[in-house]
Amino acid sequence: MKLLGISGSLRKGSYNTKLLEAAAGLMPEGTELTFIGCGDIPLYNKDLDNDNKPEGVLQLLQAIGYADGVLFATPEYNYSFSGVLKNAIDWASRPAYKSVLAGKPTAIVSASQSLVGGARAQDHLRQVLTATLSPVVPVPPFVVPMVQGKFDTNGRLFDEDTLRRLARYMDDFIVWVNRLARP
Amino acid sequence: MKLLGISGSLRKGSYNTKLLEAAAGLMPEGTELTFIGCGDIPLYNKDLDNDNKPEGVLQLLQAIGYADGVLFATPEYNYSFSGVLKNAIDWASRPAYKSVLAGKPTAIVSASQSLVGGARAQDHLRQVLTATLSPVVPVPPFVVPMVQGKFDTNGRLFDEDTLRRLARYMDDFIVWVNRLARP
Amino acid sequence: MKLLGISGSLRKGSYNTKLLEAAAGLMPEGTELTFIGCGDIPLYNKDLDNDNKPEGVLQLLQAIGYADGVLFATPEYNYSFSGVLKNAIDWASRPAYKSVLAGKPTAIVSASQSLVGGARAQDHLRQVLTATLSPVVPVPPFVVPMVQGKFDTNGRLFDEDTLRRLARYMDDFIVWVNRLARP
Amino acid sequence: MKLLGISGSLRKGSYNTKLLEAAAGLMPEGTELTFIGCGDIPLYNKDLDNDNKPEGVLQLLQAIGYADGVLFATPEYNYSFSGVLKNAIDWASRPAYKSVLAGKPTAIVSASQSLVGGARAQDHLRQVLTATLSPVVPVPPFVVPMVQGKFDTNGRLFDEDTLRRLARYMDDFIVWVNRLARP
Repeated sequence: MKLLGISGSLRKGSYNTKLLEAAAGLMPEGTELTFIGCGDIPLYNKDLDNDNKPEGVLQLLQAIGYADGVLFATPEYNYSFSGVLKNAIDWASRPAYKSVLAGKPTAIVSASQSLVGGARAQDHLRQVLTATLSPVVPVPPFVVPMVQGKFDTNGRLFDEDTLRRLARYMDDFIVWVNRLARP
Repeated sequence: MKLLGISGSLRKGSYNTKLLEAAAGLMPEGTELTFIGCGDIPLYNKDLDNDNKPEGVLQLLQAIGYADGVLFATPEYNYSFSGVLKNAIDWASRPAYKSVLAGKPTAIVSASQSLVGGARAQDHLRQVLTATLSPVVPVPPFVVPMVQGKFDTNGRLFDEDTLRRLARYMDDFIVWVNRLARP
Repeated sequence: MKLLGISGSLRKGSYNTKLLEAAAGLMPEGTELTFIGCGDIPLYNKDLDNDNKPEGVLQLLQAIGYADGVLFATPEYNYSFSGVLKNAIDWASRPAYKSVLAGKPTAIVSASQSLVGGARAQDHLRQVLTATLSPVVPVPPFVVPMVQGKFDTNGRLFDEDTLRRLARYMDDFIVWVNRLARP
Repeated sequence: MKLLGISGSLRKGSYNTKLLEAAAGLMPEGTELTFIGCGDIPLYNKDLDNDNKPEGVLQLLQAIGYADGVLFATPEYNYSFSGVLKNAIDWASRPAYKSVLAGKPTAIVSASQSLVGGARAQDHLRQVLTATLSPVVPVPPFVVPMVQGKFDTNGRLFDEDTLRRLARYMDDFIVWVNRLARP
């Protein structure tokens, strides 16, 4: 099983990107989680959304198409998920009924330095994934509030409780991908 | 009174951009509506959000800061507003309590080729404008469903009913800007 | 397969209730759709949510627990689904992790006399069903705009296109229930 | 100035109801905050929404009509506000353009025993108040997370920080009511 991680943050030291890395380290044998960034994807312009798509978009479409499931990690900006991630999804979702996202199993994690932890960002992202027809794993949202104290200076997640919750969330996601994959 | 129009679409023939142009043509004496695009604003990256911001971002911040109110026009992509516009707002909204958007009166229009007309895009944008502390004019949402038949081949809005509704919406917005401006 | 239909409207001639009846008439052999109303469920009060629950609540819990999947039909009031239905779900969802709704496959239909057709009501209901851990069938939302012209004077759905779409939606829902039921 | 507090919880010891009481104790001279409950309002039924409305509904309509602004207090159930409150608003909002809620300044507080504190409940309530055309005070949402440690055994709010924030929120609300009231 091949899962794809997409981070909605371009910041170098992004906790959300690091959360994907932590998830990759928890994947069971026979599964893998690779990453793609959103930094090479231009602002969406329908005039460019033709047979000659920008290179960064083609790479995104290929990576999603190849994956058995997609794991999004997003910060919360202004009570929603990042424009950077929304822009990537806008490219990847056309046309809705036969896009690379249609029918793709998905999951969402978010880390935040506040108490709320990204709950509202996930609400918006879930609604968008309704439009793209990408079923989100039906377990409680995975958020990491107050994240700054949970990674060490090398950028590794060391908080035991978060590691345990993340491992369980990834297990649930793998079950979900398997369940939806079966004919 | 100086209002600023921001279109969430980069498409050349965008109906949403044209809707802003139509609104500009309906402004009463003593008021004006100018525009700024989102095309020169790079993808948000907190590492670049410092004292040396990208040129396109500086222009956006200046234009918003200078305006008495901001009118957003956005297409609906995936049951939300465009990532292009979210990206611009992510830049313009920091830090939340003293950003150029804080306290700024706002309004939203959206055009769509479907029956729904952008209602869901506006729901998400309104929530984001709650976070930025930018009060939206409290009248029913202005949407233009089935927009393709309402502009002529020169890109001018000719549908009488839509023109009348738009003029009224702009009047309501001007009242709102005046009301919030008073000490 | 036993599905349960819950209408969010108490109005006698409710189009949403009639939509459930139309769906029942389209069920394939070996499946059935029965109904329960929300009219006998008191306003939610945590003080009453104990071992001695009101009779109407017990019937609701039993009906949901017995069903293989739940089909909600809801009008749109104030850009959300009805308080009547929210009240019923508030009773049926406690405690979240082991309520009768947890893990239950769900689907949503809505009829409306306006053009928007209930899209926003469904957005809110979907978010609530995220909280209750009740996976919604991952196909485009089923809404019936301008419903008043699609039922005859005997309250039967006669609009061919709506009937075809509804039959397909129910088929999709049945596939979803089967998929999630398999161990 | 007369403000009306409406609690979305019927529980006797409700922290949300107590939050309204705490707010009443902080009102400056010349202003008052009175309360109305939602317990006597029947489930919404359009067939009963006629010239002969239920008594509890008439009282609600009168109380809202008489108030200069409405302060809602709501728990968060299933990532939304309570069905009890939605039901009350469904009664009070018809017809949208000339209901007692149309144009009425509003504010929202919520208390929760979790870390999130009701943020998502407020998101839904704000969207509903967009539909009812009831402008919400444009300041950051007022939530009280982990509320159980902030009230004493007599049900009085003693947490200094929460009291200070609540007083400031009420001040902001009073300014808002005044601002919208001026011709």
